[in-house]
Amino acid sequence: MDTIFRHRSIRKYRTTPVKVSIVEHLIRAGSRASTTGNMQVYSIIVTKDKTMKEKLWELHFKQDMVRQAPLVFTFCADFSRFSTWCNYRKANPGYDNYLSFFTGAIDALLASQNLALAAEENGLGICYLGTTTYNADKIIELLKLPKLVVPVATIVAGYPDEEPDLTDRLPLDAIVHKETYKEYTEADIYKIYHQREESDETKKLLEINNKETLAQIFTDNRYTKKDNILFSKKFLKVLKDQGFMENE
Amino acid sequence: MDTIFRHRSIRKYRTTPVKVSIVEHLIRAGSRASTTGNMQVYSIIVTKDKTMKEKLWELHFKQDMVRQAPLVFTFCADFSRFSTWCNYRKANPGYDNYLSFFTGAIDALLASQNLALAAEENGLGICYLGTTTYNADKIIELLKLPKLVVPVATIVAGYPDEEPDLTDRLPLDAIVHKETYKEYTEADIYKIYHQREESDETKKLLEINNKETLAQIFTDNRYTKKDNILFSKKFLKVLKDQGFMENE
Repeated sequence: MDTIFRHRSIRKYRTTPVKVSIVEHLIRAGSRASTTGNMQVYSIIVTKDKTMKEKLWELHFKQDMVRQAPLVFTFCADFSRFSTWCNYRKANPGYDNYLSFFTGAIDALLASQNLALAAEENGLGICYLGTTTYNADKIIELLKLPKLVVPVATIVAGYPDEEPDLTDRLPLDAIVHKETYKEYTEADIYKIYHQREESDETKKLLEINNKETLAQIFTDNRYTKKDNILFSKKFLKVLKDQGFMENE
Repeated sequence: MDTIFRHRSIRKYRTTPVKVSIVEHLIRAGSRASTTGNMQVYSIIVTKDKTMKEKLWELHFKQDMVRQAPLVFTFCADFSRFSTWCNYRKANPGYDNYLSFFTGAIDALLASQNLALAAEENGLGICYLGTTTYNADKIIELLKLPKLVVPVATIVAGYPDEEPDLTDRLPLDAIVHKETYKEYTEADIYKIYHQREESDETKKLLEINNKETLAQIFTDNRYTKKDNILFSKKFLKVLKDQGFMENE
């Protein structure tokens, strides 16, 4: 399980293709993750085709790795297959609601992490694309996802063409709470964040971006309120359009 | 990575406690999962206390394993810590929206799967509780989760007191789509589901539940439309109450 502790996101890939047998192994690994009531309400869309990757690259804000990496996996919450099964079996499916979407999203995300680890175990590099939910509407169009199918995460995979350092993480204390949630005092916040805030990397970032604090780089540049509101509205519309909000 | 392929959900546990150093190792494994922009917008609440477990057991529909297992991990989308940091650093956090909730949920779920695998690698058994979103409101109250923190998944863990068989899965073809989504014909559905539908286990289930098809057991008994609608409304209210729907 060293694989877990060696994980780093890879953003540069060699063009070496990945054997079909390995791809199948990765998907099988994904399929072994826990799934709600063994319903397996998720799907994985595999993109290898150059033209399709080019189009996905556009939708993922032109992050180069989408074009470079030989494999792109789009993980979807999927109650379409299950509902189709119900319809053919004299059963009346009731999965056109938010809870069902979220159940499918959990299934999809657990499978994605299994697949990611299996990829790394097999010498591949991976990177999650946080942009999946931003342009979900256009991804749905491109991948021809029917109602009750919504993309929630994307992983690119291939043989790495870089060896980045392990990413820093907050101290464990920061993310763990014993029995009940402990709110963070100003002193706690200092303790948790100061190492990152005082790093050379941060100092460089502050200078380039002309900001006073690292937090401002997140709120003003990387994850702004304006974008968050825009993409929230878009994603909630996607959930509605895909039929997951019938009872709201 | 055999661990991935050996996974089965464990529902009976020995009372043997789990060493603190192992618990810490598991959480560290969780923390190595990919996280959006390295924001780490999730928290893990660890429950060991007998009284707290008793209360969680009630909220998880009295599934015995919640009382039995020495460890209960509740994974939460958490933009509270990050926003607190912003507030102390002259930055204006804009994370009171649905996208931010979903981003936190992804972080939490990827971490949970890492933790689950690390637990299994260390000889522990685990089981995901699908009931976390159903009673999220009461879990929030019990674990004293502040605004911008929402539980999305729970794992119980401990030394197994049973050795269940590997759970069946649909054929890989069922969950994979090449380039674009292929809708399922009646013949596809038969191919995908018939093995499960014709198993001895299913035959027994149909008899006990007096149903004609396996799908009906899901729609009429296990995951009914009525429950789904009820829990959808409850969970969406939780998102609102926890401050993740300020712009809807």
